[in-house]
Amino acid sequence: MRQRYFWVVGGDQRQAALAEALAGDGHRVAAWRLDRAELSQSVERAESLEGIDRAECVILPLPVRGEGDALSAPLSSQTQLLDDLFARLQPRQYLCGGRVDSRVFALADRHGLAIHDYFTREELAVANAVPTAEGAVQIALEEMGVTLHRCRALVLGYGRVGRLTAHRLAALGARVSVAARRYDALAWAEAYGHDTLRLGELSGYLCGFDLLVNTVPSRVLGKELLEQLKDGCLVIDLASKPGGVDFQRAAELGVRCVWALSLPGKVAPVSAGAAIRDTVYNMLREES
Amino acid sequence: MRQRYFWVVGGDQRQAALAEALAGDGHRVAAWRLDRAELSQSVERAESLEGIDRAECVILPLPVRGEGDALSAPLSSQTQLLDDLFARLQPRQYLCGGRVDSRVFALADRHGLAIHDYFTREELAVANAVPTAEGAVQIALEEMGVTLHRCRALVLGYGRVGRLTAHRLAALGARVSVAARRYDALAWAEAYGHDTLRLGELSGYLCGFDLLVNTVPSRVLGKELLEQLKDGCLVIDLASKPGGVDFQRAAELGVRCVWALSLPGKVAPVSAGAAIRDTVYNMLREES
Amino acid sequence: MRQRYFWVVGGDQRQAALAEALAGDGHRVAAWRLDRAELSQSVERAESLEGIDRAECVILPLPVRGEGDALSAPLSSQTQLLDDLFARLQPRQYLCGGRVDSRVFALADRHGLAIHDYFTREELAVANAVPTAEGAVQIALEEMGVTLHRCRALVLGYGRVGRLTAHRLAALGARVSVAARRYDALAWAEAYGHDTLRLGELSGYLCGFDLLVNTVPSRVLGKELLEQLKDGCLVIDLASKPGGVDFQRAAELGVRCVWALSLPGKVAPVSAGAAIRDTVYNMLREES
Amino acid sequence: MRQRYFWVVGGDQRQAALAEALAGDGHRVAAWRLDRAELSQSVERAESLEGIDRAECVILPLPVRGEGDALSAPLSSQTQLLDDLFARLQPRQYLCGGRVDSRVFALADRHGLAIHDYFTREELAVANAVPTAEGAVQIALEEMGVTLHRCRALVLGYGRVGRLTAHRLAALGARVSVAARRYDALAWAEAYGHDTLRLGELSGYLCGFDLLVNTVPSRVLGKELLEQLKDGCLVIDLASKPGGVDFQRAAELGVRCVWALSLPGKVAPVSAGAAIRDTVYNMLREES
Repeated sequence: MRQRYFWVVGGDQRQAALAEALAGDGHRVAAWRLDRAELSQSVERAESLEGIDRAECVILPLPVRGEGDALSAPLSSQTQLLDDLFARLQPRQYLCGGRVDSRVFALADRHGLAIHDYFTREELAVANAVPTAEGAVQIALEEMGVTLHRCRALVLGYGRVGRLTAHRLAALGARVSVAARRYDALAWAEAYGHDTLRLGELSGYLCGFDLLVNTVPSRVLGKELLEQLKDGCLVIDLASKPGGVDFQRAAELGVRCVWALSLPGKVAPVSAGAAIRDTVYNMLREES
Repeated sequence: MRQRYFWVVGGDQRQAALAEALAGDGHRVAAWRLDRAELSQSVERAESLEGIDRAECVILPLPVRGEGDALSAPLSSQTQLLDDLFARLQPRQYLCGGRVDSRVFALADRHGLAIHDYFTREELAVANAVPTAEGAVQIALEEMGVTLHRCRALVLGYGRVGRLTAHRLAALGARVSVAARRYDALAWAEAYGHDTLRLGELSGYLCGFDLLVNTVPSRVLGKELLEQLKDGCLVIDLASKPGGVDFQRAAELGVRCVWALSLPGKVAPVSAGAAIRDTVYNMLREES
Repeated sequence: MRQRYFWVVGGDQRQAALAEALAGDGHRVAAWRLDRAELSQSVERAESLEGIDRAECVILPLPVRGEGDALSAPLSSQTQLLDDLFARLQPRQYLCGGRVDSRVFALADRHGLAIHDYFTREELAVANAVPTAEGAVQIALEEMGVTLHRCRALVLGYGRVGRLTAHRLAALGARVSVAARRYDALAWAEAYGHDTLRLGELSGYLCGFDLLVNTVPSRVLGKELLEQLKDGCLVIDLASKPGGVDFQRAAELGVRCVWALSLPGKVAPVSAGAAIRDTVYNMLREES
Repeated sequence: MRQRYFWVVGGDQRQAALAEALAGDGHRVAAWRLDRAELSQSVERAESLEGIDRAECVILPLPVRGEGDALSAPLSSQTQLLDDLFARLQPRQYLCGGRVDSRVFALADRHGLAIHDYFTREELAVANAVPTAEGAVQIALEEMGVTLHRCRALVLGYGRVGRLTAHRLAALGARVSVAARRYDALAWAEAYGHDTLRLGELSGYLCGFDLLVNTVPSRVLGKELLEQLKDGCLVIDLASKPGGVDFQRAAELGVRCVWALSLPGKVAPVSAGAAIRDTVYNMLREES
């Protein structure tokens, strides 16, 4: 890929890692509103928005929007209104960001700008499933008194995160069962060597497990199933809000639950930033 | 599942294994036109079509149709016209078969019968990818003078067969690269630990490989790429007709190619039969 | 194995888990000086040493000795002199403990008792290498900003812990190299799919690694090698005192080091207790 | 390693591959009594023994001796007496061979020559266990009607070949149990995720297995155990003569047995030759 000029704007450690990754590939990179990030010499720290109009590609953070209509910029103590930012950009520049919501689309549109959402890209979702799965493994290692080796684990759901989590648990020696609803998902789980359960028919089958990892974004672990868990069974919920576990009931029953959200940015910001870079490259390649 | 009465009709060793698997689960099973199959006592050998109208489920082979309008029945020396068979069946019976073509649908329709094609089911396609991948491994082990351990392998395509083949080669210690067209397929291959190449951009990258396994059903390995292969590189083509390799050119260049079709029935008929059974169970469960 | 009467005496969570594991197998089990341990109903809490002379097997903790000549009993606020304990035992009882030192042997000998050291058993050393390896993985997951997936890791030493750590890192997608001194150790590492380096010839080869895990109990990582590490490389030292890393130099160079000792009891006390149980069973079997 | 001058003398495809591997590393290589081997231009075909006295290292085949006192040279129609060969060599040359027997040692000694046996080196034994394990997998794939995936396999013995075979079978999705005699071997098998059985206590536990792979070089599978095998169970015996299976009894009982000897040279001569090269390098390094 030919050398380009990027502005990396706002965001957290992932965004800082993204800036470094782009610079490491030989691109010219300016960082804005990443004040508290440690950055190498190869990334320019912009002093103002001066010059952003010369960037070929401007990368907004994940998520784009923080409080109100401001840019999400947890590493900066300055507030940057999106409107002021967009006012400096030109339609010919490639503008992208993560989890772009309707408010952001509307703000950009006022300035005649199109924003491309990298977070909707399938390849980024897959790449993010890797640190999520590693985060689940880390939590299991931290919280369990038994080794993952030879423990009995049940993974609920066999989508991106379920697949990669089941794979890692099995690789560490756990005996992994997978519960899914669709026959083809169950066939895939079998093909990768896991035992399988029907997701709607778990009642009566839960008492043997030391670990449950939920990836299904609906209330799959309610009172009835929680009551069947073995003493000391750990439940890790990776599902986004409202989560897959009845946490109140779990607390009443003394079931240990960890609800882990947004793991990629927490457990592996450098890899998460690199994944965003790769996705932006793909988007630029498709554009041209 | 409650006990049922099955007729298993025609077909090869898979169909024989299917009959045994059904009987092993406690069902009543009759076999017809499986004359040369070794069958245990638990499967009844039908002497005629007498009684087939009492079966709850009649399972035709994969494929259903042999020569002309006859049942495919390689283990029988008798010809069984499909028309005569269908004449004995009732619409209330559950009739299924594999690779049902328009001619078979039409013949059944004349008798007011619906045939359900188990071969179109995704879970069977996934289950069949396992013996296909094992067959590819077997061919590689047989044909190569180096160990799979530490050899360099390239898998073309990352669908069902590509995934499971790449997984097995890597598990045996090969350094596996995957070539695919779509970014999300490449992200999956990375997530499972493989190196990746863009399928349309292979030229110049093939000289390091000891083994190529193609799963893409279009001519991906033409003259230009074949010429770049390392001396002694083995090419296994798992793609259905017309295959993904220019075999004539490969022969001229002295490239060793193995075109392997219909592996499940050849390398693991018992597992292939069990996979059909599981799929038929799923179909019956959805029916009721 | 027939039902026996065990006394489990002193120790930490592993010893508590051992008591539970024995009781879970149907044995009669009394616990002494495990006051703050949570124990189920199936384990009797002894009120005094009354009755210990009726035990067939008395299991002392790992290590046996705490301060001075007292039993190691971190879960009790009472001091239990080993001498008083041994005075209650008979030579016909099977007495065992972990890391039995010469002082303990001498004290036991005064009372005509032989102590068998389960910690010298090879099978326990292997079993303990599993939680140690998992602990190393946990630390790596916690401390690194990149995923283990696709990171470059170097394991120094290929004994028990080195093998199982390399195996787990590779299973999680890391590209693992192993450094060892002996040719056969290097051959084993290759056979399990790792790249290899000669332990004495690391200089110049370290700059690519994101993670080093040392298992060699001698100063293998001195000033010269530490200076070659890539910025941000994490070093985990699993070697017992004095460790394999020049920690002072590492601190001066800003190399992140984690010196992790006694991981089994910390990361997986329940599994560590079960491993002691299995080993004691083997010892009793050999005795009879 | 600096460039050297090798003579590669006699032997089969492994020896030819060895010659190529040495030449591929930039050494000067002459081949003798490898007449029917296909050799590239980079290997000189010696016309006579002229010049062998200038080689720094002369590598005899595995095994060294064929019929009588002749060199083992299955790729040549000429008989080469070892005595005539040794008469042309000098003590300062490094002479090595595989499976050197007392007769060969005596013949060499007459000429004042020391022969170093590479086959006694542990690293070669480990390296050869890889193609042996792959060969076992190949046989299992060829002979079984079920997939290795999800089949139940028992590996007898957990030495070099047992370990690597169990590892590969598990990697392909088999549920692998390991039987061994020593507690530490069983602990290792558990640590690598296999189930375990005591080797002397197999009776009553064999009926569930689809595949047995024996690596123990003593009669472990006699009449009593063979009778307990499940119908259709495949037995692969990798143990050297006299093998671990009572083959006559197995034949009477209709148990399918494959006795597979000397697999490395058969299934992967190129890798086997490369392993000899690596070992010879190690020997030369230790010499200097």
